[in-house]
Amino acid sequence: MTKRLVEEVFAAELHNDALAPLDDAARVTAGDVPLAMTTDAFVVDPIFFPGGDIGELSVCGTVNDLLVAGARPAALTAGYILEEGLPLRHLRRVVASMARAARQAGVSVVAGDTKVVPLGKGDGCYITTAGVGLPVPGLEVGAARGKPGDLVLISGTPGQHGAAVMAARAGLDPGGAVLSDCAPLTGLLEPIMAHPEGVHTMRDPTRGGLATTLCELAEASGVTIEVKETAIPLSEPVRTICELMGLDPLQLACEGRVVVLAEPEAARRALDAFRAHEQGADAAIIGRVAEGAPRVVLQTSMGGRRLITTPASDPLPRIC
Amino acid sequence: MTKRLVEEVFAAELHNDALAPLDDAARVTAGDVPLAMTTDAFVVDPIFFPGGDIGELSVCGTVNDLLVAGARPAALTAGYILEEGLPLRHLRRVVASMARAARQAGVSVVAGDTKVVPLGKGDGCYITTAGVGLPVPGLEVGAARGKPGDLVLISGTPGQHGAAVMAARAGLDPGGAVLSDCAPLTGLLEPIMAHPEGVHTMRDPTRGGLATTLCELAEASGVTIEVKETAIPLSEPVRTICELMGLDPLQLACEGRVVVLAEPEAARRALDAFRAHEQGADAAIIGRVAEGAPRVVLQTSMGGRRLITTPASDPLPRIC
Repeated sequence: MTKRLVEEVFAAELHNDALAPLDDAARVTAGDVPLAMTTDAFVVDPIFFPGGDIGELSVCGTVNDLLVAGARPAALTAGYILEEGLPLRHLRRVVASMARAARQAGVSVVAGDTKVVPLGKGDGCYITTAGVGLPVPGLEVGAARGKPGDLVLISGTPGQHGAAVMAARAGLDPGGAVLSDCAPLTGLLEPIMAHPEGVHTMRDPTRGGLATTLCELAEASGVTIEVKETAIPLSEPVRTICELMGLDPLQLACEGRVVVLAEPEAARRALDAFRAHEQGADAAIIGRVAEGAPRVVLQTSMGGRRLITTPASDPLPRIC
Repeated sequence: MTKRLVEEVFAAELHNDALAPLDDAARVTAGDVPLAMTTDAFVVDPIFFPGGDIGELSVCGTVNDLLVAGARPAALTAGYILEEGLPLRHLRRVVASMARAARQAGVSVVAGDTKVVPLGKGDGCYITTAGVGLPVPGLEVGAARGKPGDLVLISGTPGQHGAAVMAARAGLDPGGAVLSDCAPLTGLLEPIMAHPEGVHTMRDPTRGGLATTLCELAEASGVTIEVKETAIPLSEPVRTICELMGLDPLQLACEGRVVVLAEPEAARRALDAFRAHEQGADAAIIGRVAEGAPRVVLQTSMGGRRLITTPASDPLPRIC
């Protein structure tokens, strides 16, 4: 439904060369300067969740979209829609989290705007961030650039963010152990930014999780992606939450992970670099890209094979 | 209250050199490229009003903020927060208006994001736009740059947007004649962009209207601004609405007007250029900048003098 909305309403009316690829960030030229631009609206419920809050999320989401599009974030803007009655201490905490995340990502929030809507016309706090970045020369990445022979790499355990928000919303939390992975990917991706050779695709698997990201990449690149279930570094708390709630961990959002398609040598170099970084300790090569119809095949732990599909409805709305 | 919120919460936490001036747009350097950036959240109620809608407004607001900061708009982003149940035809109409306004302003919407919130957690449609522009060399404008001796110029009748939204919301409309002035200032300001000499300050008098803008400029520049009531080009429909509702037209928002402080020769040159443009037919020189305490003095049509102050509460919330 979201895909149709984007294609039929937004792309149809607002079509232009930069918007066309529908990637994480658009490439534009301002004067003769190449820039990357992106925006995200954040409506996560609740606004505070284990491991983060909407302020941190809004910075990380936009910073990460620029990074995975192959650009170094230069500056962010933030627009706040506050519901009347939001406690000022909550707002302070959210803004402090934004500031902390921005410092961690090495970027500034340079412009902002605030609107207040009446009680009942919002849900505490919505934040829309936008970001501008400078494309890294030589780092030509895109959803359509995956090639047969590439390896598939993930930088850490998937589904943490989705599971954390879910647990917070349901009042479930097995031992307080499910924390969102919400974090800027700036440091983690620096080695790739410095040595981009052989890296074809980077994507942060947010809404719809790893499953949706892999399906979109297979579709855009016109390739089959084969993934080994046993190679996916699932955390115990996420596994537990998913079993309790009957959810597929591969469909739960990440907010601080990256999926990379790269030539084998580049993928192994990235794996080593990820593992040397505190955010990438659980990084793993989880599969490979093959010639074939655009689809994602999971080799299950039982030895079977099943197709992974994009979830028809979000198992967890308002996750970001 | 808004001013305190901005200073004590946002500026305190997110302080950086670009954010510091709290102008309409921030100046940043991406790599070694100077850019202007701005953002605005739009929550106008109703989303369709005489003379425009939230889509057009969201493009004009951001385009105009870049222009009055002395930058040519290069690209926009748009984040949508849609309330479940918003008719798809309303969304199409809003997006089509955005596209039309963007074409008129000569700018593209290059990135977007859409989130849906449950019924009762929004109000149809909120849009947050952000924009990047290229500063015009030689056009050094800012709220603090007004100088004694400058003339004060407005490009058209103030308060149209505020009066139009007000009329729509109250079901009042004397003869269908109150239309929002919502429009991109791109063409109108092109002569100033091409010949910026002597222009010190440009500002679009949006929330809080002409009164608030003049007070902010007097404060930022440390000058007295003297305005002649009889020189202000008030439209009959706005005058009527204000009399009916007991409102001050100087406190009602504009969305397609600009206030300029400029040396006399530059001001007269701008006046001629404005009047030659269809959006500037009612342009007028309405006052002058003098040495003195930071305040705005209105010479009334009765011959008296009164201080103009920033409205303590917005007479018309959710105007943009």
